[in-house]
Amino acid sequence: MPIDEDLFDKLKVELRRGALGLAVLAALREERYGYTLRQLLDDAGLKIDEGALYPMLRRMESQGLLTSEWRQEAKRNKRFYRLSADGEGVLAQLLNEWNAMTASILRLSQGDQ
Amino acid sequence: MPIDEDLFDKLKVELRRGALGLAVLAALREERYGYTLRQLLDDAGLKIDEGALYPMLRRMESQGLLTSEWRQEAKRNKRFYRLSADGEGVLAQLLNEWNAMTASILRLSQGDQ
Repeated sequence: MPIDEDLFDKLKVELRRGALGLAVLAALREERYGYTLRQLLDDAGLKIDEGALYPMLRRMESQGLLTSEWRQEAKRNKRFYRLSADGEGVLAQLLNEWNAMTASILRLSQGDQ
Repeated sequence: MPIDEDLFDKLKVELRRGALGLAVLAALREERYGYTLRQLLDDAGLKIDEGALYPMLRRMESQGLLTSEWRQEAKRNKRFYRLSADGEGVLAQLLNEWNAMTASILRLSQGDQ
């Protein structure tokens, strides 16, 4: 019985969930508004729906990881987001965590057990 | 306001969830029973509770990613798990996915945007 595509997609979504949060924090070391952030993630192969991105940004801001401000650009009001000082610290720790996991997975997948 | 430890732990747990599934699949290219699998993951820095590992193994088996068999070893009955042929294929795809995400995160975090 072949593994169906749905199952693979589900596993992939689970794998991506944590990575997306990390990618968003990393991308917001430079100030960006929602649309350009989504473009950037998309270009990096990490597609995310608006319906998932905006709640994530609000949650991160309420957690103190991000700050945001409304500003006019090209005659339109846009909400700009950027990493807070605390967010910088959390990003650094999560990147370490990611690197450690990548090393573990590599070791396990090479059968060097 | 400093980021509390709880928040960091929550973010770390989210990050690990997907990685753990991948690590379990990678570790089971060799046949293992639960205890040695947990030891191996622990040594690799990916600690997992029995209460999380066994449901994960059952789910993966019902999804066709693993096979299992009861066998006696050292006079005790143990359930041995190993990756199925389909599981091999899924593991390979998920490893590609992981590598692509790692490259994206690296690129984003180096500000090469």
